[in-house]
Amino acid sequence: MAALRSRLNNGLLRFWIYQAVGIENRYVHSVFKDGEIFSKKIYSFKQSSSLIFNQSCGNHITLTSHSYSQTPEHEKKSTDKSHRSPHSLVEKDLSSLTDEIRQEFSTASKELCEVVEYYFDGQGKAFRPMVVLLMSHACNKHINLYNPQIIKSQKRISVIAEMIHTASLVHDDVIDAADTRRGKTSVNLVWGQRKSILAGDFILSVASMALARIRNEQIVTILSQVIEDLVRGEFMQLGSKEDENERFSHYLRKTFKKTASLLANSCKAVAVLANCEEDVTDIAYQYGRNIGIAFQLIDDLLDFTSCDKTLGKPTAADLKLGLATAPVLFAAQQYPQLNSLIMRRFSKSGDVETARHLVAKSEGVEQTKLLAIQHGREAIRQINQLDQSDEQRALINIVNMVLNRSK
Amino acid sequence: MAALRSRLNNGLLRFWIYQAVGIENRYVHSVFKDGEIFSKKIYSFKQSSSLIFNQSCGNHITLTSHSYSQTPEHEKKSTDKSHRSPHSLVEKDLSSLTDEIRQEFSTASKELCEVVEYYFDGQGKAFRPMVVLLMSHACNKHINLYNPQIIKSQKRISVIAEMIHTASLVHDDVIDAADTRRGKTSVNLVWGQRKSILAGDFILSVASMALARIRNEQIVTILSQVIEDLVRGEFMQLGSKEDENERFSHYLRKTFKKTASLLANSCKAVAVLANCEEDVTDIAYQYGRNIGIAFQLIDDLLDFTSCDKTLGKPTAADLKLGLATAPVLFAAQQYPQLNSLIMRRFSKSGDVETARHLVAKSEGVEQTKLLAIQHGREAIRQINQLDQSDEQRALINIVNMVLNRSK
Repeated sequence: MAALRSRLNNGLLRFWIYQAVGIENRYVHSVFKDGEIFSKKIYSFKQSSSLIFNQSCGNHITLTSHSYSQTPEHEKKSTDKSHRSPHSLVEKDLSSLTDEIRQEFSTASKELCEVVEYYFDGQGKAFRPMVVLLMSHACNKHINLYNPQIIKSQKRISVIAEMIHTASLVHDDVIDAADTRRGKTSVNLVWGQRKSILAGDFILSVASMALARIRNEQIVTILSQVIEDLVRGEFMQLGSKEDENERFSHYLRKTFKKTASLLANSCKAVAVLANCEEDVTDIAYQYGRNIGIAFQLIDDLLDFTSCDKTLGKPTAADLKLGLATAPVLFAAQQYPQLNSLIMRRFSKSGDVETARHLVAKSEGVEQTKLLAIQHGREAIRQINQLDQSDEQRALINIVNMVLNRSK
Repeated sequence: MAALRSRLNNGLLRFWIYQAVGIENRYVHSVFKDGEIFSKKIYSFKQSSSLIFNQSCGNHITLTSHSYSQTPEHEKKSTDKSHRSPHSLVEKDLSSLTDEIRQEFSTASKELCEVVEYYFDGQGKAFRPMVVLLMSHACNKHINLYNPQIIKSQKRISVIAEMIHTASLVHDDVIDAADTRRGKTSVNLVWGQRKSILAGDFILSVASMALARIRNEQIVTILSQVIEDLVRGEFMQLGSKEDENERFSHYLRKTFKKTASLLANSCKAVAVLANCEEDVTDIAYQYGRNIGIAFQLIDDLLDFTSCDKTLGKPTAADLKLGLATAPVLFAAQQYPQLNSLIMRRFSKSGDVETARHLVAKSEGVEQTKLLAIQHGREAIRQINQLDQSDEQRALINIVNMVLNRSK
């Protein structure tokens, strides 16, 4: 069982950390502050390597190594049904997702269809639709609602969320001149830049049409905000910030807009469709926001830790694109020489290697994971406010999946 | 006074044509079919060089050289007020247009703002908002409606139409790698490709947000269709058609989607907002559709006739982009050697010059103008079904402006 001590000061967050020791099926979990034990709790765990965390007070968080369970002893027990995988709970809807999306494109010309359908090949993880569908059911059950018409509209939101996400991938690949996506040649390499730009525009416009058909102005506003945020986030990513303190908050705002806004607003949208009260729509929004940020932090971390099959070393794709993500920003606090590399967007020969080396030496990766865990914890705290249901528990399990994914 | 005979067969339309002879303030206007006089009519005209036209029967149209009036002797007289320029009738709204659009971008970051506002510099013709505002007033007066709230929403449509149009210009300039736009350096040259792609996306998303705020699902659907059409039109433009007959219909469908759909659907939207009956909303749509196609045909024609100040000869920008527009497609009927050049998108050295030369020798430009006039005539026929008003007459005058513009 891993033990970790770290002190983190990023200008926004200050953590004093932790020791988690596994004894049989229990964690004895201590939180330290300036070398003194600050709090101690005992948690049980069901799986062999679970990470258990708890915010004792203020900005303190605790963690272990690489996975966790959300169920401290004193919390409600999960039922047998909670072992059903999140995916299996909405399997039927997810299996028809690709067909439904392709159906939306059916009026396009043959060639345009081929381009826009290229990334809708059923090979994606469908992470966003899965979260949105589970949130729909969790909200519906929370308010004892069963209305096939509303469920149908909520399903449309999951389809639209996947379309907006994919449209942004298409434009991202053009902007980044990407070579590959999900193991296949990128859309821009296959079809060229101009057709890819148009394909992205087309997917967005078809999504807007599908959105309009839901005939709910509030929903249109909520999801139009997502598209606006995606662009703003992408734009924020293009600029480097001189001020080191501002840099981290800029990164977090960018992360919200580029990744979390879609999840936050899609989750909110399905709660609004169910006519939930504002406190419930806010829970849905905050769950989506926090799991979205956690997802992106782990994504940024994996860029430094997961090995490319061919290269046998981390791809550091972000560094190569000139992007300073959380691991680098944290590392720069330990190794200030990274600041000049960040400012010039790793453009000089050797910059990428130097940055990768310093990040590996630093605690940047661990601190990024910490921050992801904190957001995961908040997502769970939010969703725990909804009545228990298979889907509510699945949303908790998804946090685990997000934090422990290795690719 | 020009006299012209021409025979045109494009696989879709067949015209037998005409002699128009000016005598004092009258045209004696004859239509010939296969060398025989088919019909003869006498029209008065007020301006010194007016084109008067009439569809005698079937596919026959008549024309003179370069301008026209819509008021044959037997038609209703225009009042003094009709002499007010279309622009002056909606001047107040148009003067605040740029400010209103810039207001929509106020929440964006400084740099993003600079890029997205670059083409909203108040120097554009604001042709689309002018048509939309005039159509709003014409429809409102037709049904004796005065509702400030509805007028406000109609004005929003004019703002949104200009935003959608400008977003498409931004992406067009990226796709075409354009150097200039309206006499200034193109957005992609100033800001680079990636920021321009994002700026286009951002303008579209802000337009979608503004659209959602109107809170009318039908309006959202109508204008989302425009964005979809714009992309489809752009995509259609990328492909050459092998079949010569199909080529012209492909070009006309492309023209509708790329240019006319925005006018048609914006005009329809303001009529829908006024709660007009379906016959009136259809008039608005058909007016916008026809003036939109006429506008694009004249645009395509000017590419072969208006001289570049520096070069002292037509720019033939479309040919250089590989595009075969109406003048070339017509010319290819007289000079079939153009077909292979069209198919290879004028890509071989000397192709552009050869095509320009053959178009100049052919009647392609005149035939394009004929087709534009036919669409202008149909736009007038449609709008003449609405009650007379200053704005209704202005919409008729705009057809004149479109057909006679020289840049």
